[in-house]
Amino acid sequence: MIGFFLVKSHAIKSTNNNTRYLDLVLGDKTGEINAKVWEITAEIEQFFEKDEPILVKVKGLITEWQGKLQFKVEKIRPVLPQDQIDIADYVQTAPYEPAFMYKKIMQYVAAMGDSELEALVSKILEESKEKLLYYPAAQKNHHSIRGGLLYHIMTMLRTGESLSQIYSNINRDLLYAGIILHDMSKLEEMDANKLGIVSDYTVEGHLLGHIVQGIKRVDRVADELGVCQEKSLLIQHMILAHHNVPEFGSPKPPMIPEAELLHYIDMIDSRMYDMDKALSSTEEGALSERVWSLGNRRVYKPMNKPEKPEAT
Amino acid sequence: MIGFFLVKSHAIKSTNNNTRYLDLVLGDKTGEINAKVWEITAEIEQFFEKDEPILVKVKGLITEWQGKLQFKVEKIRPVLPQDQIDIADYVQTAPYEPAFMYKKIMQYVAAMGDSELEALVSKILEESKEKLLYYPAAQKNHHSIRGGLLYHIMTMLRTGESLSQIYSNINRDLLYAGIILHDMSKLEEMDANKLGIVSDYTVEGHLLGHIVQGIKRVDRVADELGVCQEKSLLIQHMILAHHNVPEFGSPKPPMIPEAELLHYIDMIDSRMYDMDKALSSTEEGALSERVWSLGNRRVYKPMNKPEKPEAT
Amino acid sequence: MIGFFLVKSHAIKSTNNNTRYLDLVLGDKTGEINAKVWEITAEIEQFFEKDEPILVKVKGLITEWQGKLQFKVEKIRPVLPQDQIDIADYVQTAPYEPAFMYKKIMQYVAAMGDSELEALVSKILEESKEKLLYYPAAQKNHHSIRGGLLYHIMTMLRTGESLSQIYSNINRDLLYAGIILHDMSKLEEMDANKLGIVSDYTVEGHLLGHIVQGIKRVDRVADELGVCQEKSLLIQHMILAHHNVPEFGSPKPPMIPEAELLHYIDMIDSRMYDMDKALSSTEEGALSERVWSLGNRRVYKPMNKPEKPEAT
Amino acid sequence: MIGFFLVKSHAIKSTNNNTRYLDLVLGDKTGEINAKVWEITAEIEQFFEKDEPILVKVKGLITEWQGKLQFKVEKIRPVLPQDQIDIADYVQTAPYEPAFMYKKIMQYVAAMGDSELEALVSKILEESKEKLLYYPAAQKNHHSIRGGLLYHIMTMLRTGESLSQIYSNINRDLLYAGIILHDMSKLEEMDANKLGIVSDYTVEGHLLGHIVQGIKRVDRVADELGVCQEKSLLIQHMILAHHNVPEFGSPKPPMIPEAELLHYIDMIDSRMYDMDKALSSTEEGALSERVWSLGNRRVYKPMNKPEKPEAT
Amino acid sequence: MIGFFLVKSHAIKSTNNNTRYLDLVLGDKTGEINAKVWEITAEIEQFFEKDEPILVKVKGLITEWQGKLQFKVEKIRPVLPQDQIDIADYVQTAPYEPAFMYKKIMQYVAAMGDSELEALVSKILEESKEKLLYYPAAQKNHHSIRGGLLYHIMTMLRTGESLSQIYSNINRDLLYAGIILHDMSKLEEMDANKLGIVSDYTVEGHLLGHIVQGIKRVDRVADELGVCQEKSLLIQHMILAHHNVPEFGSPKPPMIPEAELLHYIDMIDSRMYDMDKALSSTEEGALSERVWSLGNRRVYKPMNKPEKPEAT
Amino acid sequence: MIGFFLVKSHAIKSTNNNTRYLDLVLGDKTGEINAKVWEITAEIEQFFEKDEPILVKVKGLITEWQGKLQFKVEKIRPVLPQDQIDIADYVQTAPYEPAFMYKKIMQYVAAMGDSELEALVSKILEESKEKLLYYPAAQKNHHSIRGGLLYHIMTMLRTGESLSQIYSNINRDLLYAGIILHDMSKLEEMDANKLGIVSDYTVEGHLLGHIVQGIKRVDRVADELGVCQEKSLLIQHMILAHHNVPEFGSPKPPMIPEAELLHYIDMIDSRMYDMDKALSSTEEGALSERVWSLGNRRVYKPMNKPEKPEAT
Repeated sequence: MIGFFLVKSHAIKSTNNNTRYLDLVLGDKTGEINAKVWEITAEIEQFFEKDEPILVKVKGLITEWQGKLQFKVEKIRPVLPQDQIDIADYVQTAPYEPAFMYKKIMQYVAAMGDSELEALVSKILEESKEKLLYYPAAQKNHHSIRGGLLYHIMTMLRTGESLSQIYSNINRDLLYAGIILHDMSKLEEMDANKLGIVSDYTVEGHLLGHIVQGIKRVDRVADELGVCQEKSLLIQHMILAHHNVPEFGSPKPPMIPEAELLHYIDMIDSRMYDMDKALSSTEEGALSERVWSLGNRRVYKPMNKPEKPEAT
Repeated sequence: MIGFFLVKSHAIKSTNNNTRYLDLVLGDKTGEINAKVWEITAEIEQFFEKDEPILVKVKGLITEWQGKLQFKVEKIRPVLPQDQIDIADYVQTAPYEPAFMYKKIMQYVAAMGDSELEALVSKILEESKEKLLYYPAAQKNHHSIRGGLLYHIMTMLRTGESLSQIYSNINRDLLYAGIILHDMSKLEEMDANKLGIVSDYTVEGHLLGHIVQGIKRVDRVADELGVCQEKSLLIQHMILAHHNVPEFGSPKPPMIPEAELLHYIDMIDSRMYDMDKALSSTEEGALSERVWSLGNRRVYKPMNKPEKPEAT
Repeated sequence: MIGFFLVKSHAIKSTNNNTRYLDLVLGDKTGEINAKVWEITAEIEQFFEKDEPILVKVKGLITEWQGKLQFKVEKIRPVLPQDQIDIADYVQTAPYEPAFMYKKIMQYVAAMGDSELEALVSKILEESKEKLLYYPAAQKNHHSIRGGLLYHIMTMLRTGESLSQIYSNINRDLLYAGIILHDMSKLEEMDANKLGIVSDYTVEGHLLGHIVQGIKRVDRVADELGVCQEKSLLIQHMILAHHNVPEFGSPKPPMIPEAELLHYIDMIDSRMYDMDKALSSTEEGALSERVWSLGNRRVYKPMNKPEKPEAT
Repeated sequence: MIGFFLVKSHAIKSTNNNTRYLDLVLGDKTGEINAKVWEITAEIEQFFEKDEPILVKVKGLITEWQGKLQFKVEKIRPVLPQDQIDIADYVQTAPYEPAFMYKKIMQYVAAMGDSELEALVSKILEESKEKLLYYPAAQKNHHSIRGGLLYHIMTMLRTGESLSQIYSNINRDLLYAGIILHDMSKLEEMDANKLGIVSDYTVEGHLLGHIVQGIKRVDRVADELGVCQEKSLLIQHMILAHHNVPEFGSPKPPMIPEAELLHYIDMIDSRMYDMDKALSSTEEGALSERVWSLGNRRVYKPMNKPEKPEAT
Repeated sequence: MIGFFLVKSHAIKSTNNNTRYLDLVLGDKTGEINAKVWEITAEIEQFFEKDEPILVKVKGLITEWQGKLQFKVEKIRPVLPQDQIDIADYVQTAPYEPAFMYKKIMQYVAAMGDSELEALVSKILEESKEKLLYYPAAQKNHHSIRGGLLYHIMTMLRTGESLSQIYSNINRDLLYAGIILHDMSKLEEMDANKLGIVSDYTVEGHLLGHIVQGIKRVDRVADELGVCQEKSLLIQHMILAHHNVPEFGSPKPPMIPEAELLHYIDMIDSRMYDMDKALSSTEEGALSERVWSLGNRRVYKPMNKPEKPEAT
Repeated sequence: MIGFFLVKSHAIKSTNNNTRYLDLVLGDKTGEINAKVWEITAEIEQFFEKDEPILVKVKGLITEWQGKLQFKVEKIRPVLPQDQIDIADYVQTAPYEPAFMYKKIMQYVAAMGDSELEALVSKILEESKEKLLYYPAAQKNHHSIRGGLLYHIMTMLRTGESLSQIYSNINRDLLYAGIILHDMSKLEEMDANKLGIVSDYTVEGHLLGHIVQGIKRVDRVADELGVCQEKSLLIQHMILAHHNVPEFGSPKPPMIPEAELLHYIDMIDSRMYDMDKALSSTEEGALSERVWSLGNRRVYKPMNKPEKPEAT
């Protein structure tokens, strides 16, 4: 078989009798395959030393055993310009352009009436802009795609806008600020490359987690900007409580309505994402496989398509 | 003390030495008090035989012990026209007129594109209309006020409308139908009087519960109307799964996106209600008492009022 | 290797490089093996189109890897009359004849003093008779054998008979009715073939489950027969509560003694079945493997055989 | 008020300003009342020094406050022969004579075919006979009545007899032995007087509990009698596992079918007892109060009485 | 009754018929009593306006009802010098002088070999010294006494010293730093007066909690001092993980041995404190009441006193 | 490949087509490998009949598939004297000599002031000495090495010594006795060979477990020696409660301070062991793999080495 693949991870390993080989995970949009290069040339070795996502052209033999595939690589080389390969075909990305989504979010910020919250959110967005344009929202779960974090925030803001009209006692600006900042320290919790692929959690991510990291960051920036203490505290509380229960990482439950809403808006957006994804590969009238991120549920795709709704 | 009160419950009891007395719970909008009438005249007895909510004028002595109050009634009589008492001042009611809310819900129904779902929902609404105009949504928890169930449904529909625009894969009509029907059998699960006060659960309510009662009802009506089986099944599933987890009464988790959304829309509406209620009697900068229906949380009322949001 | 096997499932699949193959699960009484047919002839394809359990004669090569076996099929053809193969040797069945068990159950029905319950149970048994004669009680757990559901009901009735003598306040007819109907909608929850092998759950089985399906059925039939409402409600409650706790699918706990007994009679029968099965392949003085359906327990088979009990 | 009462507990206490008074719990079959004797004569004091259950004649005043009654004693004296009071009217007892129940159990023992188990059980029954004739099976829960433990064992043996006929692989003698011994060390776990009223747990009962106490006892007696080690071990295991799960005191789950059956027979007998008791004070068509020992459930008493069953 | 008491809390309240009264909680070392002053003079009112702990001389009448005492105050005045009352007799305090304990802790700090950790800990101790000298470690649980936090830290350091000798791979300085800082932000989580009595949690304490507050503080001070990032991170992790499991407030489990030890040293010190306290009011050979902070356990006080151990 | 290995388990098995082969688990200090001998000579068969740990010399081929290795053995023979192989190189052992550790423990015993406890502990140690010198403390978890149980006890005694100085109300001798005896019946719960390798649990170990076994043993020996009943009871309680919660096998929680301490000393020693082990194969600045015995946690190895602590 011959094909173009993205190198999702690579490592030199040794067999028991000390033969060195290159162990790869190759991927395209449809999935991943484990591959092994048994003859490592100096060229290949050098090529893989650069820690960058790489597209390669590969020739080899695929074997199948008990449902798992393995790829024994015979030839491998980097993609060349003349191959005319578009990396976008190999990486899952959000359905909107990062720049567009960032701009959309900035419009919500601009609409804020509370200048302190606006300043706080703006500063953190600016500091984060570079990574934010490509970071996913997770390593494996919902929105684990290029630009996924931006997409998650933007969609949540749309819901936040509606709900703050329906529940008019809500402090809308506080809700917006909470939505924008709740997962921002995922940028510090995970190491992701420019393709939005997470290799691992950072050490601080492992030992503290994005919730605590996010609180420290808001605390520092609010302090620098002289934001009123209560507002800073409320945002920190919203970050702390957004997983709702201790078992999922929130030692305090939501204690203001905006924190409660933030939790549900977050749940809705992640669950709709995961369900859509599961149903996209399910046939009508059938159930999906069990979906780990949905608590091991299976989901059903109805045979009846919704009839075209009229405008209300 | 002399005052007008609503009789929330009444019973003839006996003391150890066989003195008969009338045990009352009297209420107004601010709360309840236990009252005892030690001299029961034939007049009083006859008056309390009618099992209807009644307004009374009472004179008596309030005593306090260890923080609990008790009211020893000396005189009691029904309210007379010349007292010019408005029952609305004694009963908590939804902020909109029942007829208005019912009409609003019917507009959502009318906007449905799916004629089968429209017929199903319309029929059940019609059958239920009489009780629906005054029933609360619960005995003690969220929306336990006159017209509370209508108010709960109407607000949820507003959220459902927004979310079906944001998540456009959603079958909007199915979501509307689920919202309207999810708690409808609370009308059969609880016994409530015309003031929206629940005296108890019905026997069927105890032994089956509104979820199972609701499923049976949808099953029957859909059958009568010849609604396509899958649609009926999906609605029944949405009712079954709307409490999300077995511990709260849903043996099956939501397995279609509309069922998942229904759960969260329900949670949001009940939580916003309970939080608003808790905060309404809390001072700024302080925490409320523990709120049982919020999992025994206390909620915080910020000192900073939200700044007037501009229109977005 | 050459042998006769039952085809437990079959599907046409493709390898990565688009070679089509037939993927089979072949079984006999001792277990199952995965088999692959790499050369699919028109004959074979046609033969597998009929969705019926089939006995085949197979020749091929068994390979073993890491403890799992795989069967590469070289020749395969349907069993012919001259092969003189008895399907009963290939399928696990209950130790009594279906007709005998059905008749035995009908004797319990006939002994009922309550004519309404008798009518209700009789009608549902009749409606269900055809499938009931071969359905198992589960896909994988206890009584997942041909005729398993009948066998489960019959044995439970024997225990119910004894217990209603020991606990004489019990409404015996109600208990019998609950025993007979508690799992009846497994016939609608699962798809099983005539050999009692379950291929999958039905869509309604997935979205509602046999408990809710059973309640709807009792509700409908009781209505048709004009059974008194309380009796119908009590049976529905017994079905609803027979798993005892929400985590196992019963949103309401047993609230009448008959429902409580039903739960324990059900547990005893399923546990005795699973323990007997586990011990049948265990040596004396040793422990079985872990048994998933017994909560991952291991069970012990004593060295001492029970001494012959005298009649009491 | 004047009446005869059983003294269920008594203690000399002091008020804040050092007035000594006698604090009593007085009871009859219908319930209990707290009573206080404010003037303690030497006579009264002496009379209460003997730590024996006593019947008294009391005169005094009952007051009611917030639903709780209190009894201010004016006169109190021991019951005299001429009062012609029968203590049986003041104490709840099992519906059969202790001697009858003991004899019934001995018949099951005599029917055992396994002489070692018979010897083991006989010896422990003999050692325990004196206390067994009046001990309850619990301080507050099921069978907390005079002779309750005997009654519990006898009824369980009846069920054990039936089930060992239905599930014929069962080692009946082992099951009988387990039933008879499973709760025997309640005699050592609790301190009860001759009326079957438990004052408290013993220290060893607190620190080890009747399960561990029972295992040690079987171990010792089996050793003395030279019972085969495996049989002794199986009985000990049955005692250890009879609460089924760690949360209820069984660190090991049942690992032989007889242990599994023992658990369910125990559950059935205690649940039927508690339900009967709850329903005995409930009206037809109504629900009982919440019952703590039933996991805070309410139980329902149907309006329809069971129709007279014919003999099967 | 006449006596001297500490005013633990005080509030002006109104009865139903609008009589104002002063509601007090009065305490001494033995416990608390609720007291009411029905005639509030201007003098009394003014005297209670100062929000300071106060000793008062009180005359009044104690009444008892159903086991609860209430104190109707007739006369009340502040303690005067001539009363010669020592406040130390009214407040529970640690068994060592605050200054001594603080010095002891500073000796552990001085012994640190790691100058960065030494600087970090020293700075925070200095910043906190004033409050640390009198703060308790909790509002109600273990070490809720004047100087309780210092006492808790000092004892834990002694254990930490021993364990770092036994488990020599441990980074002793890191362990010391963790012990000293783990509860330090209780100073910010709770409002306590100079007597070590906690009136309430602070708003930040409610919304974030001392664990998150402590992490932010270490983060800030380490930053100011230029402490190496990994060291700061490890201390923050130790604070985050010291409650061990999410349900008790630690979203991350201990991931370094020093964090694991910190948790157990903390548990040992609090449990020994609570058990000692419970046993101090228990008789030999008896069990204590249930102790809420010990998970509702009762503890036993043996009759046998330990024999004098020889030095090892 | 040619090498020397320890035979950790061996069994004759058959393939589907009835070829017999020898299935081995071979190990050295670095790990284990599955091996198969396809040609079984009479010599080999005889050699493996002796159920003793054996060292073998093996020649064969290692193959790798999906990360798992398998060893096809071509030649195999027992180790001969001339091979000069030291078994100690093939088995993990405690860092101290068994005789040294035993002697160390006896010094703690000798230092006891309480002669009854000393006698009790001495007798059980003597009875157990032979197995104690090589038994591990577990089959797979902490201290599952040769001499692991002795090592566990000795280290715990060191901690017990320190803590009984810091918490001086503790009955030191009781604590020592509890530490020495808490796991002693692991000698009866597990079958281990002289290399400290556990093949399986004993039947009594499965059905009762080392906690109950240990209690029975203390009960018996204390009885024989005439130890005062309360002391015996307290030791039995400490054994019963040392896992702290029912879910981990302790039906009673610790009810004396010595039992509470025993639990924490046990936890500390096992956790430090497991963390050290996990970190020994982790690089600085990195996280370990998930460790099952640490509740699936990963642990972190800091880059900063602890600076040399001064003596305090």
